[in-house]
Amino acid sequence: MPERIGKYTLKISNNVTIRSGVGVVGKKESEGPLGKYFDIAFSDNKLGQPSWEKAESALQKTAVCELLKRNNLVNADIDVILAGDLLNQCISSTFGLRELNIPFLGQYGACSTMAQTMAVGAVFVDSGAAERAVAVTSSHFCSAERQFRLPIEYGGQRTPTAQWTVTGAGAALLDKSNGDVSVKYITVGRINDWKVKDANNMGAAMAPAAADTLYHFFTDTGTKPSDYDMILTGDLGKVGSQLLKELLQKENINISENHHDCGLMIFDLEGQDVHAGGSGCGCSGSVFCSYIMKQLRAGKLKNMLFMATGALMSPTSSQQGESIPAVAHLLNIVSNA
Amino acid sequence: MPERIGKYTLKISNNVTIRSGVGVVGKKESEGPLGKYFDIAFSDNKLGQPSWEKAESALQKTAVCELLKRNNLVNADIDVILAGDLLNQCISSTFGLRELNIPFLGQYGACSTMAQTMAVGAVFVDSGAAERAVAVTSSHFCSAERQFRLPIEYGGQRTPTAQWTVTGAGAALLDKSNGDVSVKYITVGRINDWKVKDANNMGAAMAPAAADTLYHFFTDTGTKPSDYDMILTGDLGKVGSQLLKELLQKENINISENHHDCGLMIFDLEGQDVHAGGSGCGCSGSVFCSYIMKQLRAGKLKNMLFMATGALMSPTSSQQGESIPAVAHLLNIVSNA
Repeated sequence: MPERIGKYTLKISNNVTIRSGVGVVGKKESEGPLGKYFDIAFSDNKLGQPSWEKAESALQKTAVCELLKRNNLVNADIDVILAGDLLNQCISSTFGLRELNIPFLGQYGACSTMAQTMAVGAVFVDSGAAERAVAVTSSHFCSAERQFRLPIEYGGQRTPTAQWTVTGAGAALLDKSNGDVSVKYITVGRINDWKVKDANNMGAAMAPAAADTLYHFFTDTGTKPSDYDMILTGDLGKVGSQLLKELLQKENINISENHHDCGLMIFDLEGQDVHAGGSGCGCSGSVFCSYIMKQLRAGKLKNMLFMATGALMSPTSSQQGESIPAVAHLLNIVSNA
Repeated sequence: MPERIGKYTLKISNNVTIRSGVGVVGKKESEGPLGKYFDIAFSDNKLGQPSWEKAESALQKTAVCELLKRNNLVNADIDVILAGDLLNQCISSTFGLRELNIPFLGQYGACSTMAQTMAVGAVFVDSGAAERAVAVTSSHFCSAERQFRLPIEYGGQRTPTAQWTVTGAGAALLDKSNGDVSVKYITVGRINDWKVKDANNMGAAMAPAAADTLYHFFTDTGTKPSDYDMILTGDLGKVGSQLLKELLQKENINISENHHDCGLMIFDLEGQDVHAGGSGCGCSGSVFCSYIMKQLRAGKLKNMLFMATGALMSPTSSQQGESIPAVAHLLNIVSNA
């Protein structure tokens, strides 16, 4: 059973295993520094679908179906699927997963979704509410651009702080199979709003939430950054990562030795012209479920923190002059490999 | 700890109490048949806010703050808040709750959100992941109309199958206080898509999901409709309620004796000119958290089923010619009063 530690952290007590992960990406991501680690890469970013939204649904469905196949499971073996994405009303998830006949709990955490779905999945599995849970999320450059920013065809100039939404999906299987990779602690984040209003600077909007959650995790567990091989954020990018380090430094917490960010790992920032880095639910989703899971299963990572951050605004709220609230959820993941 | 019963149902084992509920509504709802039962009614549907979206956020915040006040709790007493709504990127929830500093897990289940947030909350409380959880949702006629259908100012003709989105919010507090009202079972629903495409006929789109979840609940628990005082759906309205009864009749399950629908209870269909009934997350949210909770706490309802249904489409998916998938989540709630 999960046990509360300190004010914000849960100890996952029953050896909840992340048994397997599948990361699926598009063409640009497959050409980046982590290209060879992804489980499936599509050269056609439309995946043969008539719209970008349907392509994103297909990314998510592909990730889940591949995950089940690799683990010799059928849909009926999964007790609950936790899924979410950036599109209005989470249609990548609902349309992508509608044919699977698996009990479905839609999650909304914007780009924190991979951490949120795994955290909720860990509670369900640890408590016995589910024997097996799947956590999944996705994003797509083209569906995100036209919903949140400008039509692709417009060819608008991007600001230096802008990030590039990853075309990708990640799916993870949680159970009690006593595998090598397990969830030890989770910290559910609070909404932080530092009144950043620039929708082209998500990193700055999200960094305070990341600092808040990380601070609470260290306080609740009595640990420090050097206790971990890696402190991995989802998509803070160049601007947000720098800001996170500065915010934590004020609390005398130094993460500069072992902090990494999926948004900075997935692309070659200069060579691939992505300005401040990658972003989107699919950024941390695909990087965690493929590259990081492979490192954990190989024992190259032994004790790490995975924290994904989400910007909780919409185009409507931005048009109404609102700032960008954000949230960050964290998992401490250990490997016995 | 939650215990799995049959294929789809969880037995909530540790006396998880719905300690309190607060239902907040707008003017039209306060003039309907349940008017006197709501905890707070606003005569100004804008709640003094500059936009409908901000008004909806204020509904949700009002419901949560009133809930805490009535239970002599402060924000820091709540371990997790589970919230969701219909607006793009769930901004009613994120903006409404951002100042509360409570760990936040955004839920997306469209109009099933009140049932989903209470179900997830019950798992968190039962397992010890949270000592106290708050479940909250909202909807607003004006923010929903302009997002999903037409600008209010257009004054479009409504079809006979159309439903009227409730302006309202519901918030419930779950803990282990051994109160009179407790959650006994939950059934998490699967996505059902019977290829209904008419965005003005949500009841028809959602009825199959409701039938599926109810069928699984009866099968898993070995119970029948007459075992319950009331089988309450969220917002199937006139068309969907009739369809639900017909679908279940084919499985020899007759719910016509004790089925009720929040969407049919909240308005006087003829007198208030709402066609097929009320709808929206705030419909089942406000009705359950005020009227039904009062009936349960008074012992007038002893053993009931609350099942809210959600239509999982977006304007984008409808414009792309897609059908409307739906989901339904169920709670069996008992009273010892």
